[in-house]
Amino acid sequence: MKTETTIQGLSASLNPARASRKIIGFVPTMGNLHEGHLNLVREARKLCDVVVVSIFVNPIQFGPNEDFDNYPRTLEQDSHLLAEVGCDIVFAPSVEQMYGHQPRLTNISVAEITNDLCGLQRPGHFDGVAVVVTKLFNIVQPNYAFFGQKDYQQLAVIKQLVRDLNMPIDVIGVPITRAADGLALSSRNGYLSEQDRKTAPTIYKTLKLAEENLQKGQNLSDVLVQIRADLTAAGFEVDYVEARTPMLQKIDQFDQDVVLFVAAKLGKTRLIDNLQIKHSS
Amino acid sequence: MKTETTIQGLSASLNPARASRKIIGFVPTMGNLHEGHLNLVREARKLCDVVVVSIFVNPIQFGPNEDFDNYPRTLEQDSHLLAEVGCDIVFAPSVEQMYGHQPRLTNISVAEITNDLCGLQRPGHFDGVAVVVTKLFNIVQPNYAFFGQKDYQQLAVIKQLVRDLNMPIDVIGVPITRAADGLALSSRNGYLSEQDRKTAPTIYKTLKLAEENLQKGQNLSDVLVQIRADLTAAGFEVDYVEARTPMLQKIDQFDQDVVLFVAAKLGKTRLIDNLQIKHSS
Repeated sequence: MKTETTIQGLSASLNPARASRKIIGFVPTMGNLHEGHLNLVREARKLCDVVVVSIFVNPIQFGPNEDFDNYPRTLEQDSHLLAEVGCDIVFAPSVEQMYGHQPRLTNISVAEITNDLCGLQRPGHFDGVAVVVTKLFNIVQPNYAFFGQKDYQQLAVIKQLVRDLNMPIDVIGVPITRAADGLALSSRNGYLSEQDRKTAPTIYKTLKLAEENLQKGQNLSDVLVQIRADLTAAGFEVDYVEARTPMLQKIDQFDQDVVLFVAAKLGKTRLIDNLQIKHSS
Repeated sequence: MKTETTIQGLSASLNPARASRKIIGFVPTMGNLHEGHLNLVREARKLCDVVVVSIFVNPIQFGPNEDFDNYPRTLEQDSHLLAEVGCDIVFAPSVEQMYGHQPRLTNISVAEITNDLCGLQRPGHFDGVAVVVTKLFNIVQPNYAFFGQKDYQQLAVIKQLVRDLNMPIDVIGVPITRAADGLALSSRNGYLSEQDRKTAPTIYKTLKLAEENLQKGQNLSDVLVQIRADLTAAGFEVDYVEARTPMLQKIDQFDQDVVLFVAAKLGKTRLIDNLQIKHSS
């Protein structure tokens, strides 16, 4: 496995693969890798000849009061894990390498689907994601790119971006990887106190209970109220509990496939999760 | 020369060239081609193995009161001209082919350099240009793209876009092609009455006079006032007369290279021109 820290170095490493028309798979990450990321790499490994993983904590997708400075940077450990799951090239550029010294004047925004859920609490976040992902796509020029369904809204934004701009890339969404107790894996789980870590799986439990109640015929809005009540009772500060179609349109009734979304804080740590529920019509 | 009207058809036509690592050159146009466009194609022909010219009147770069519906569409004539100068593939998609049926949610904006000059009178214009050029770049995936310096601000926007988003494309600016009387060639010249066509070269004459006066040491702001006065006297309705650095920064004095910009109307026809003036320091 090679590690490249410059765009030029990465291009040099990828050129032989490009010349021989190999299938390039790309997994963009911010590092501090867990099994969720490694499952993305395993998926890429199945479909592609060459697997590139980027590790870049992207400053422009963090708000002024968010955790950019403290976001865990664990490149050495990440590299060991990536080598084990068959990554070919790690791309770990500096902020300077990605954004240079000249001011960036270009912005990319994806309307509507970024307006609510995490977009409400994190203004500019998805613009920052759209810009960095576009940059990375242009640098790596992959055939396939892999994103986790845990960041469901982010995945929807990337799919929309790729479609709207005719990017020659297939975007693959990979199901959420969960701990044995149901907690969706996330780098931010590492911020949780021991006590909060024990509380955190309540999110998934409430989502699974909601699924059961929906299948039993309970009203969608009642189910959402129940999730919020259960999380609040468990000690969460709830940011949102929402239901959407798989394409993120608002939905009032469980009369088609639905995705339930939760964002909630335990202490200072904001956790998100979602559950896709099939409608048996 | 082949003509393709679908993205899929174009890809099929380009795949052999891509597989054999040929250098692909791209000239995006809105058709109604004149010698200015043909000179872009000739430049592309010099540098590239395969030359693709797109002809697409892009609705999203026209304002509500602009000439989208009446913009001249002359595909047959354009095709003859392109065949003569050695174009390999004409890409002439429909609006539906480019934008599909689903709503486009993604926008691209380039700040600062789009705020004045043509950006002031044409809000949203450069966003529309940035989006369509990005789409075309992703569809054609050229090594080189060629743009005329007549649309100097557009060229600057594209260069910024390409740099900010790490697009793997070299953008080449090609000098303005002028009629014998100095008028910068433009598809919109065809809208001019016979009388206005005789007046139109005044723009270039005032710019050349301004150059002379600057080289003689006349004050930059006086020179700009003079251009405006001369154009108004000749019957133009002046939109702007401005001086900028080559990177489009504001400039007060002729103490470095400068570009003079004019936009002015004759009747309903808006003409633009510019002149780059070297500072001999």
